[in-house]
Amino acid sequence: MRIGLDIGGTKTDAVVIDEAGTVIERRRFATGRGPEQVVATAVRGVTELAALAGMAPHEVASIGVGIPGQVDRLAGRVQHAVNLDVEELELGRELSAIVSAPVSVENDVKAAALGAFHLLSGDSVPRGIATRDDDSAQSMAYLNLGTGLAAGIVIGGRLWRGSRGTAGEIGHIVVDPAGVLCKCGQRGCLETVASGSAIARQWPTSHPIPPLDLFDCADQGSADARRVRHSVAQGVANAVRVLVLTVDVEDVVVGGGLTALGDRLRDDVVEVFAGWGERSPFLASLELASRMRFIPDAFPAAAVGAALVGMPDASIPDASIPDESVATVA
Amino acid sequence: MRIGLDIGGTKTDAVVIDEAGTVIERRRFATGRGPEQVVATAVRGVTELAALAGMAPHEVASIGVGIPGQVDRLAGRVQHAVNLDVEELELGRELSAIVSAPVSVENDVKAAALGAFHLLSGDSVPRGIATRDDDSAQSMAYLNLGTGLAAGIVIGGRLWRGSRGTAGEIGHIVVDPAGVLCKCGQRGCLETVASGSAIARQWPTSHPIPPLDLFDCADQGSADARRVRHSVAQGVANAVRVLVLTVDVEDVVVGGGLTALGDRLRDDVVEVFAGWGERSPFLASLELASRMRFIPDAFPAAAVGAALVGMPDASIPDASIPDESVATVA
Repeated sequence: MRIGLDIGGTKTDAVVIDEAGTVIERRRFATGRGPEQVVATAVRGVTELAALAGMAPHEVASIGVGIPGQVDRLAGRVQHAVNLDVEELELGRELSAIVSAPVSVENDVKAAALGAFHLLSGDSVPRGIATRDDDSAQSMAYLNLGTGLAAGIVIGGRLWRGSRGTAGEIGHIVVDPAGVLCKCGQRGCLETVASGSAIARQWPTSHPIPPLDLFDCADQGSADARRVRHSVAQGVANAVRVLVLTVDVEDVVVGGGLTALGDRLRDDVVEVFAGWGERSPFLASLELASRMRFIPDAFPAAAVGAALVGMPDASIPDASIPDESVATVA
Repeated sequence: MRIGLDIGGTKTDAVVIDEAGTVIERRRFATGRGPEQVVATAVRGVTELAALAGMAPHEVASIGVGIPGQVDRLAGRVQHAVNLDVEELELGRELSAIVSAPVSVENDVKAAALGAFHLLSGDSVPRGIATRDDDSAQSMAYLNLGTGLAAGIVIGGRLWRGSRGTAGEIGHIVVDPAGVLCKCGQRGCLETVASGSAIARQWPTSHPIPPLDLFDCADQGSADARRVRHSVAQGVANAVRVLVLTVDVEDVVVGGGLTALGDRLRDDVVEVFAGWGERSPFLASLELASRMRFIPDAFPAAAVGAALVGMPDASIPDASIPDESVATVA
């Protein structure tokens, strides 16, 4: 039995998987903020899930934690997890001391990539998720549309973190030199176009879910809303194009908060692909629409992936540079 | 002994390597155009190089051919090799029937990626090429600046062709929606900014080497030349940024015709990185300048890579899609 935790800005998702990767138990609860409460949240997740599986925490084969921010995977250290009020936390060390089991810590988007790949491969698919007709594909990108935009990459069935841990940081590829200033200091980054923060900036509203309000107002005929909505779809399409042209992953699985928009966002993006395909036979030949799939927000991709991170051969090693030098934008 | 051929638009580069990958012999000669002459060129390369190594062609362990255009690697078929006047050619079948040895065919940029990685790793480095201080890095992209712009990607020491063979086709990532029309049908592709064809379009001249004329005129103060030259450097920098942010390869090795400009181009690109780094600490942390190196145009990266293609484990398999569906822009 392995436990996986996805510690998000508001909620933590916790799962137990068996050796085949099947999800045996799952619980969600509120995340505490700040270093101490994040550790307490993780301990609660491990304790409750182990109890549900009829075990003591130290009897668990491995514990994996997916968490936002900059993660030094070898040291189990988290830095700049802004949404959790964590500047630096020795999460691996602190958690393993309390629960007496091996702990792995991974960036949440990278964990979700592994989880989405596993879910897509169909071994232990929970009810509801679409699997591939042909399960032989070994490459996939997980495109996370949350507050920011980032991807995780799976090649040959294993997570490719990159030489310095920045593989998939496509949110900071510049797609429009005339675009707006990004918090990273560049102009026109993908993240300034297709992300929760991009929508919040361009569509100020008191609605509790700004993307939903944006799409509703666009449907009701607001020209401003339609313009922003179209630019979001173009940005998502652009991200898929970057991933396919650069890495040529077979599938791009889209997840994160914005996928709560479901088919409304998906259809918009597919329309952008169709327009591109009309002008470019080359682009049409890439079949981007059929290679993109949305993962329902409710599926615990990051928690399952976090549980898998502890397994041997989960990722492709690159020994060139120690993980300390991992550079990500929080 | 393995033979590798790099069949280019004007010249063919042929090498013999031993089992350690050391280049034993090398010859260059003119490429014939059209399907028949391309086969004759390949036969000539194999025959001459085998004789130089004191063998009959059928005694060679393997023959690898790097060639431009769309390559179905399994079938040994080449399509749309426009610069060779080849629309379709069963090169693998025809060549192996004549020389009675196993033949592999690979796209020239992908072959060069494997060759550049091999050269960089230092086992059998010819005189003159800079090797890594630390040879443990296992990821690299080869960025080819020829008539077009494309890359080849090495991960875990092996060539990653992608799920459908389009990995590294970054020349058709759109970097400026307001850019010029690309032959692929899109606007503002990287290839329209940073390639031999981009220079030829923007700097019409009777000079035999237009890029050289462009750089000379810029040095002599032409404002137009300086503008075009700067945009080329920005495009190359952009390509490196895309490769590092998406795949996070440790090194980006730049090759192809434009690298004949040497330090003049390299210094321009490094200056672009420096400007970006001043505005973006995130980008500065990627250390792009120190991760980019130019490979001298004279080094037979594609020929050596073509010879290596025939070795076991040279590339990461992805069984999802047969090679027939490979889509590249000729």
